[in-house]
Amino acid sequence: MPNPTAAMLVIGDEILSGRTRDGNTHHLAGELTRIGVTLSEMRAVPDEAPRIIEALNALRERYDTVFTSGGIGPTHDDITADAVAAAFGVAISHRADAMALMQAHYDRQGMEFNEARKRMARIPDGATLIDNPVSIAPGFTLGNVHVMAGVPNVFQAMVATVLPTLTGGAPLLSQSLRVMRGEGEVAAPFGALAAEFPDLSMGSYPFQANGAYGTNLVIRGTDGAQVDAAMTRLAALFGE
Amino acid sequence: MPNPTAAMLVIGDEILSGRTRDGNTHHLAGELTRIGVTLSEMRAVPDEAPRIIEALNALRERYDTVFTSGGIGPTHDDITADAVAAAFGVAISHRADAMALMQAHYDRQGMEFNEARKRMARIPDGATLIDNPVSIAPGFTLGNVHVMAGVPNVFQAMVATVLPTLTGGAPLLSQSLRVMRGEGEVAAPFGALAAEFPDLSMGSYPFQANGAYGTNLVIRGTDGAQVDAAMTRLAALFGE
Repeated sequence: MPNPTAAMLVIGDEILSGRTRDGNTHHLAGELTRIGVTLSEMRAVPDEAPRIIEALNALRERYDTVFTSGGIGPTHDDITADAVAAAFGVAISHRADAMALMQAHYDRQGMEFNEARKRMARIPDGATLIDNPVSIAPGFTLGNVHVMAGVPNVFQAMVATVLPTLTGGAPLLSQSLRVMRGEGEVAAPFGALAAEFPDLSMGSYPFQANGAYGTNLVIRGTDGAQVDAAMTRLAALFGE
Repeated sequence: MPNPTAAMLVIGDEILSGRTRDGNTHHLAGELTRIGVTLSEMRAVPDEAPRIIEALNALRERYDTVFTSGGIGPTHDDITADAVAAAFGVAISHRADAMALMQAHYDRQGMEFNEARKRMARIPDGATLIDNPVSIAPGFTLGNVHVMAGVPNVFQAMVATVLPTLTGGAPLLSQSLRVMRGEGEVAAPFGALAAEFPDLSMGSYPFQANGAYGTNLVIRGTDGAQVDAAMTRLAALFGE
């Protein structure tokens, strides 16, 4: 049985303008691989409701699970929650449980729970909250979509909360061999080996070190015995 | 007149598995912003022909220019050139000019120009080559699609070659103010300011420094006088 699939939707002008480099996708990718969920696609779109709605509807239809990052803060450009509600065709309002935990948080901090902050308690109908141990304002899950913050430490905390609720498949195992030969030199025997193991995925990633060409050869698969067998063959072909 | 639009398509299992963190999109985003081209969408897909073809056709139809990175090396998993040819419905073959420059390169290096390396001279019919000053094997442009290497220094060199051929618009100007107040505190006046300047894009990006909350307030736009005017107002609101 193939592993469950997932997609990531990164929301924010700051990613596409080059101001901010997205690192959330890389974090999520590693975590999903570890539990046997295949990250099948990633998209980044600007803070524009029609673009968020369109991408979200395309992805949630196609993949088992969708994660979003960004756009759930208190300012005018944080429109993700509204866009998600619109994508699902449900209403959105200030939710009592979210309001209560944020009120308690700001009371403890001696800060005003003002209108802008209350914006972060606006949650689409039917969603469940995702805990935010870092800065309290919650994410939420609606259907197969997990809506999370863009700030990396909050995103990572939310991923840690959501992951145990997912049904993973067989973890993707990966082994690699670093050889000091150019990709063009290893390509033919490596390709032949890949053809012998159709259930495994083999990739080659060139690098340069001290002016010399090298290649990292990576074998990935869910069947540990097959990965081991292919790795033994690879080492015999290229091991120094 | 709105600025020309672009999309980025990152191709490669290694990005989605979490092995490699994509940095090419961030580089391209910054370069496009500088010359007044709006990066409107980014997608990442695995090394699977149907997925590459589908994403490429969706993006090249919708945006003025599309950039791809990854999958143009010599190994069996490098299928981007074939997928691009299939997306455009054109043939692909070893091209004489690409073969000649690669032959000369490998002769100089005293390396064999073997079958795997010759794979990198397979170029779709009707394409023009993109120079690769780093490792010679060229990228190519077909229609509004620029197909480039995934290795970051090669990708960057190819971007530098392609950018002067694009017709940019007004460069996106950006100014920012760093304030040591939480996002929730600045949200209301910042949102009101944004509403006064509908032609500008204003975003807020929270951070923590030494346990205190702060926010970077960013104003972006193509009209320098408007950006300056908004920035003056912003400084009056929040300047310390």
